[in-house]
Amino acid sequence: MTSEGDGVLRTQVAIIGAGPAGLLLSHLLGNAGVESVVVESRSQEYVAGRIRAGILEQSTVDLLRSAGLADRLSREGDQHRGIHLQWPHERHHLDFVDLTGRSVWVYGQTEVQKDLVAARTAAGQQVHYEVADTALHDLETDHPSVTFTDAEGRPRRVAADVVVGCDGSFGPSRAAVPDAVRRTWDRTYPYSWLGILADVAPSTDELIYAWHPDGFAMHSMRSSSVSRLYLQVPNGTDVATWSDDRIWDALATRLGHGQDGWELTPGPVTEKSVLPMRSYVQTPMRHGRLFLAGDAAHTVPPTGAKGLNLAVADVGLLAPALIDLLRKDDPRLADAYSETALRRVWRCTHFSWWMTTMLHTSGDPFDEQLQLSQLRWVTSSQAGATGLAENYAGLPIGF
Amino acid sequence: MTSEGDGVLRTQVAIIGAGPAGLLLSHLLGNAGVESVVVESRSQEYVAGRIRAGILEQSTVDLLRSAGLADRLSREGDQHRGIHLQWPHERHHLDFVDLTGRSVWVYGQTEVQKDLVAARTAAGQQVHYEVADTALHDLETDHPSVTFTDAEGRPRRVAADVVVGCDGSFGPSRAAVPDAVRRTWDRTYPYSWLGILADVAPSTDELIYAWHPDGFAMHSMRSSSVSRLYLQVPNGTDVATWSDDRIWDALATRLGHGQDGWELTPGPVTEKSVLPMRSYVQTPMRHGRLFLAGDAAHTVPPTGAKGLNLAVADVGLLAPALIDLLRKDDPRLADAYSETALRRVWRCTHFSWWMTTMLHTSGDPFDEQLQLSQLRWVTSSQAGATGLAENYAGLPIGF
Repeated sequence: MTSEGDGVLRTQVAIIGAGPAGLLLSHLLGNAGVESVVVESRSQEYVAGRIRAGILEQSTVDLLRSAGLADRLSREGDQHRGIHLQWPHERHHLDFVDLTGRSVWVYGQTEVQKDLVAARTAAGQQVHYEVADTALHDLETDHPSVTFTDAEGRPRRVAADVVVGCDGSFGPSRAAVPDAVRRTWDRTYPYSWLGILADVAPSTDELIYAWHPDGFAMHSMRSSSVSRLYLQVPNGTDVATWSDDRIWDALATRLGHGQDGWELTPGPVTEKSVLPMRSYVQTPMRHGRLFLAGDAAHTVPPTGAKGLNLAVADVGLLAPALIDLLRKDDPRLADAYSETALRRVWRCTHFSWWMTTMLHTSGDPFDEQLQLSQLRWVTSSQAGATGLAENYAGLPIGF
Repeated sequence: MTSEGDGVLRTQVAIIGAGPAGLLLSHLLGNAGVESVVVESRSQEYVAGRIRAGILEQSTVDLLRSAGLADRLSREGDQHRGIHLQWPHERHHLDFVDLTGRSVWVYGQTEVQKDLVAARTAAGQQVHYEVADTALHDLETDHPSVTFTDAEGRPRRVAADVVVGCDGSFGPSRAAVPDAVRRTWDRTYPYSWLGILADVAPSTDELIYAWHPDGFAMHSMRSSSVSRLYLQVPNGTDVATWSDDRIWDALATRLGHGQDGWELTPGPVTEKSVLPMRSYVQTPMRHGRLFLAGDAAHTVPPTGAKGLNLAVADVGLLAPALIDLLRKDDPRLADAYSETALRRVWRCTHFSWWMTTMLHTSGDPFDEQLQLSQLRWVTSSQAGATGLAENYAGLPIGF
């Protein structure tokens, strides 16, 4: 990789976005001797600190392990056999290991990000943070490039064989696919999540997904001393209208504090925010020499814990495809990437929609009865429980 | 049973409605020595001739057999192992026997009705057809009654221990539950079915449920020489705008005529009608000495073939409950009837809604992709296929 006098960086893969998808891709490529340059509009601290998902599928953990990225995950991650699914007066445990032989891990996206930054720093990865004006060029040729203004205000160019957009919903990559080529699907849900982080030991061993007439609630966790909890709230909710006391009261009601001796222990709230719920898919995931991975191509509502796992699955397909393309001049996996990745994308998009619409109240009394009937079936039928479990615990990458 | 000079008929059970639910109930009661009188607003010919469902669940067949009503069904009914589920360029067979050990039978509701009429006629059952002004009285006492004007224009009264409403969506029974007591749930779907009967051998061995961008289509059958087919059409469709040629053309397109060598053979259309799609549930299914069974308490859209089977399941629970109540003065099953029946009602209401919304196009492109993703999952996952199969083939009565 050489930086020329004209400010041009030459590399094999230009990666836009230094979140988990971008850094994991640079890592997998680097392990195979393929060079990359990563550019990121945010600061390293911002990317490392933003609160996101916390559940890793079996296949995500397997991939991180095989890439040498799971030492701390293996020590500090918390393997869960399943989830609790409940509605007023009933709580049921779905045991994914019994149902499908697969499990999930509680390990925050912030922790995955730290491990990736440490690994890429140790490997000498070139990452440009706080860049501006990122633009993609010549994607339909064999000499695509990315231009940006670096943190010092200098115009820069990365000349590459391939450009990969790992820059999420708001980055420039998804719009770099021409309108005549791309198709998009979009669904905005009529509710949001109010999420909190609290410095208190979780009141549950595994996640609780709770249907309640007041709205959905969820009890998750980040560690043995940090809890993560969510409440369904109307779109447009101002977080300032939810005091800590109001939040804990609503959580206690919806999660069933006092039922069958179960108690919710409140604690100091350290983070509080409102998250919108959206489904979005853009196809194709490859155009010319541009490949999209993760949220750059698709967004899911958080209910099924699929966002991070889907990004990792994309990268797990894309890395070997680019390695074959760039090292062996073999385009077969690269040519199949979009179609292969989209099979999983639509499966997870459907599952996330299904979990979301099963658990969130819409205000329609018939919907309410359909939801309760479906919850009773999912928790009483072996087929119903297995269907949820195999989607939640996740299918192998490239299924 | 005595008819007094004042025109009062005394019996143990007054049954309103001589469709399959009412006649099957009178038969099961009669087998156990409990007397009933049946009143019906339509003529015997009308009830016998109206075209309805054609698929019997395993548990429906089992109940008809144990009641001595299945001689002709056993000879002429067509046992099916499953269904075909398809979308453009893909057809998949779901084998319910392999998946759940249960099967379904093709045997029209008109045939069930004929068998019931023959059995009740042989047993001397009193059925009053073409009655008017049917009204229910004193349901909260132990001497309820039903009044009506008989076919000859005379006012009549049936004095009974119990009244059972088997009179469907439009009969007076459901509204006889006081507004302060009853709760109702209702959903009207934004599409209808155009159904035809045709004098032509079915072009398929088992039912085909077809998703298509133009709308749902279905190929069913009544016998080896009579086909029954359906097309999704907009609400308010005038059947006169659909010529036979237009119907067969649309069926050929949606069912995939010409794909993989499969051909749809058209034939003379003998019946043509537009059916609305609706979900409706009323609770409780018992109020005082009034019990509701079948469509009097609930309506499902026809997609899951649940309407007749649900009515039979209600009667399968209600008959032993009334026998215990009237012969042994034991009210336990009667007291449990509403709650027990409603478990199955909500399961089938959910399943019928699920099949309907999975297969009918709404015009929303995101819905379309969710439907296709769900269809792919249902036809490729053992859990997904088993979930559909166990609901379609049906659970045992009283599950």
